[in-house]
Amino acid sequence: MNREIFGLLEFEAGAEPRQRIRFVDPAEASISVLDLAASRGDGIFESISTASGRPLALDAHLERFARSARMLELPQPDQALWREAVLTATERLGAATEGVVKIVLGRGIEGATPTHPSGWLHATVPGDYGRERRDGIDVIVLDRGYRHDVAQTSPWLLQGAKTLSYAINRAAEREAIRRGADDVVFLSSDGYLLEGPRSNLVLRRGGTLLTPRTDLGILEGTTQLDVFEFAGAIGLSTEYAVLRRDALDDADGAWLVSSVRHAAPIRSVDGIARATDAGLTERMNRYLLARTG
Amino acid sequence: MNREIFGLLEFEAGAEPRQRIRFVDPAEASISVLDLAASRGDGIFESISTASGRPLALDAHLERFARSARMLELPQPDQALWREAVLTATERLGAATEGVVKIVLGRGIEGATPTHPSGWLHATVPGDYGRERRDGIDVIVLDRGYRHDVAQTSPWLLQGAKTLSYAINRAAEREAIRRGADDVVFLSSDGYLLEGPRSNLVLRRGGTLLTPRTDLGILEGTTQLDVFEFAGAIGLSTEYAVLRRDALDDADGAWLVSSVRHAAPIRSVDGIARATDAGLTERMNRYLLARTG
Repeated sequence: MNREIFGLLEFEAGAEPRQRIRFVDPAEASISVLDLAASRGDGIFESISTASGRPLALDAHLERFARSARMLELPQPDQALWREAVLTATERLGAATEGVVKIVLGRGIEGATPTHPSGWLHATVPGDYGRERRDGIDVIVLDRGYRHDVAQTSPWLLQGAKTLSYAINRAAEREAIRRGADDVVFLSSDGYLLEGPRSNLVLRRGGTLLTPRTDLGILEGTTQLDVFEFAGAIGLSTEYAVLRRDALDDADGAWLVSSVRHAAPIRSVDGIARATDAGLTERMNRYLLARTG
Repeated sequence: MNREIFGLLEFEAGAEPRQRIRFVDPAEASISVLDLAASRGDGIFESISTASGRPLALDAHLERFARSARMLELPQPDQALWREAVLTATERLGAATEGVVKIVLGRGIEGATPTHPSGWLHATVPGDYGRERRDGIDVIVLDRGYRHDVAQTSPWLLQGAKTLSYAINRAAEREAIRRGADDVVFLSSDGYLLEGPRSNLVLRRGGTLLTPRTDLGILEGTTQLDVFEFAGAIGLSTEYAVLRRDALDDADGAWLVSSVRHAAPIRSVDGIARATDAGLTERMNRYLLARTG
């Protein structure tokens, strides 16, 4: 078992340029400082969980990777190439553990001609999120600054694309730590619940799981999609909704769901404790770790 | 004369860790794919123009570099180190041409312990902006999505810091090209003039130059500061103002000012032509290329 796996996207010159992912040593896993991924956060990524030797929700991740590429006007990623690379990396990570495979597509070298995207893969074994899944997380609610309809009115703001420009997401996470919390739920400037800096919000209201509508300038969650499948399997209904802040306060249950950490129940919001449902959360996480595709 | 100069920030281990900038070959100018600059746009930068062998507005750039570091909670950059590196790179670029020295400070390798920032320098001779300075640029006005007061209400959105997370700025520039224009003026969601994706806006109204107030979530412009000095030198008054969209349409003159391109007169806004003042613009650019400090 290898706990750190790197691959680089390479282009072979020729009449019909060919791409491949070359697996490399950590020492070789580097990019030029002129790469626009490094200098401008200009690119996209996906973090794909693995469990028991299988990538989870790989189709959904590859579809979102392609969608993000379209939103940033990057060349469409070669789905077969990335799928194969993720499968190879997952196999090399080993079957016993949870893992994560990150894939990245950047815009390439600034000013180069001809230009082609840069890209890489990094697979590793993440930290243990057992505590967060079991005991829950404390969240704060922070203004995201954008109106709920910004993805429709102002597509150049790239809301809904999973870009490398994550400085704000990371600053929001630092703000949470500063306030003694673990994570953040973003609110639109006009008061609607959005998402976490790297997760989606799922609420339970009676027999229904709800999540903010994906046209609110948020990422379509690959994990959230599977949580809704889980809901269907256990007889809960599901709903994509436009939710105001009080929907979080009034919900019967709340989770931030994402790759790697999977379902983390929210046990407090802005310092106000709330009940979590250990049984339901455990079933949810067991389902998420067992999914395929 | 060398037209491409690279330096890397390095840390020497020891009881008293020492930093230096090591000048390297282009082939060596690389960073790990695990560098948070590359994977999260988590870092800051400055682009410092040079002319006739001198960096322009170096003090102002280094001050803003330090300010951005504070806003992102990065370690304070070593001012003497970066100053010396910029001066060395400027000297190597040669005295005859205009040049640009870019300095970058990233958060370092994800998960590394002990952690220290990554950083690099890249100096080169930029393209020729003679046409833009002389003939002017066509701009479009785009929604920036944020209210004018977002820097005060929501500091985690990092407005006013010069971060590596520039995907939106670059998407806005692509939107301008798509609409047959050259550049963008951002408008706050509540209708106030802000800045360009990599420039500040300066307007002339009679005998006064105006620019949007720096507390509106915009970058303090190093070039704009010197344009205001120029105004003082030629008997124009200056004003930091809260300006609505019509202030651009009604202005007697308008420029986007920045490092590298310096003062580019705006000759049309959303397809509506407007007068430019070739004489004033030429004097402005001559002043900008002659400044020191």
